Amino acid sequence: MKLEHIGIAVKNLGASDLLFEKLLGKKSYKNETVEREGVTTSFYNTGESKIELLEADNSESPIAKFIDKKNEGIHHLAFGVENILDEIKRLKKEGFQFISEEPKEGADNKLVVFLHPKSTNGVLVELCQEKA
Amino acid sequence: MKLEHIGIAVKNLGASDLLFEKLLGKKSYKNETVEREGVTTSFYNTGESKIELLEADNSESPIAKFIDKKNEGIHHLAFGVENILDEIKRLKKEGFQFISEEPKEGADNKLVVFLHPKSTNGVLVELCQEKA
Repeated sequence: MKLEHIGIAVKNLGASDLLFEKLLGKKSYKNETVEREGVTTSFYNTGESKIELLEADNSESPIAKFIDKKNEGIHHLAFGVENILDEIKRLKKEGFQFISEEPKEGADNKLVVFLHPKSTNGVLVELCQEKA
Repeated sequence: MKLEHIGIAVKNLGASDLLFEKLLGKKSYKNETVEREGVTTSFYNTGESKIELLEADNSESPIAKFIDKKNEGIHHLAFGVENILDEIKRLKKEGFQFISEEPKEGADNKLVVFLHPKSTNGVLVELCQEKA
């Protein structure tokens, strides 16, 4: 499995874009709103693994809830897989728990599913597969 | 800047190694103790960016303090740089704050320095340069 991206929860995407542009010495290459998740995202190229900033668009968004509880910071690690259904099957057999049973559409033209952090050392792990 | 690795704080490296072996479908390729930091580490190949598990060796270790405060989970993002002194200079000019002024020896044959999370959206950011 390859580390595909790191998701970082931020309160204000405009301010955080300015900050990460300075930090990384480059501009975001894409902004995208994922309505189903209630988030707007901004992506940075940092080698094979990208940085994804996530701002909540409403108070029901998982990102709003995360920030309420833990404040801004790293939200998830995403691993790219070839076949997300096979990986879900393999990991369930290994005893991992998932937040949802079925993959759904995420940002960046991907099918995504999340493992529950209680089965992964407190790390919210996403699996993602490029859509055909 | 390239994302070099993700550091994950764990309570018990043996148990977490078993967990990450199952999750990633591969074994750790290296274990290393960094006495100055009071940590033992375990590295996984996940493409260009690695996963580094960190267990505290004593209660004064930054990892022990992190786990006391926040429990297990993602601890830091590390970006690889060509010249760490130049990057420190550039980022200070941009207004970023550092935890220590000087780079020091870290795991994996690297010089490392940490930015303060209060200047980076709650993310503990490490810069690292391969030692000659």
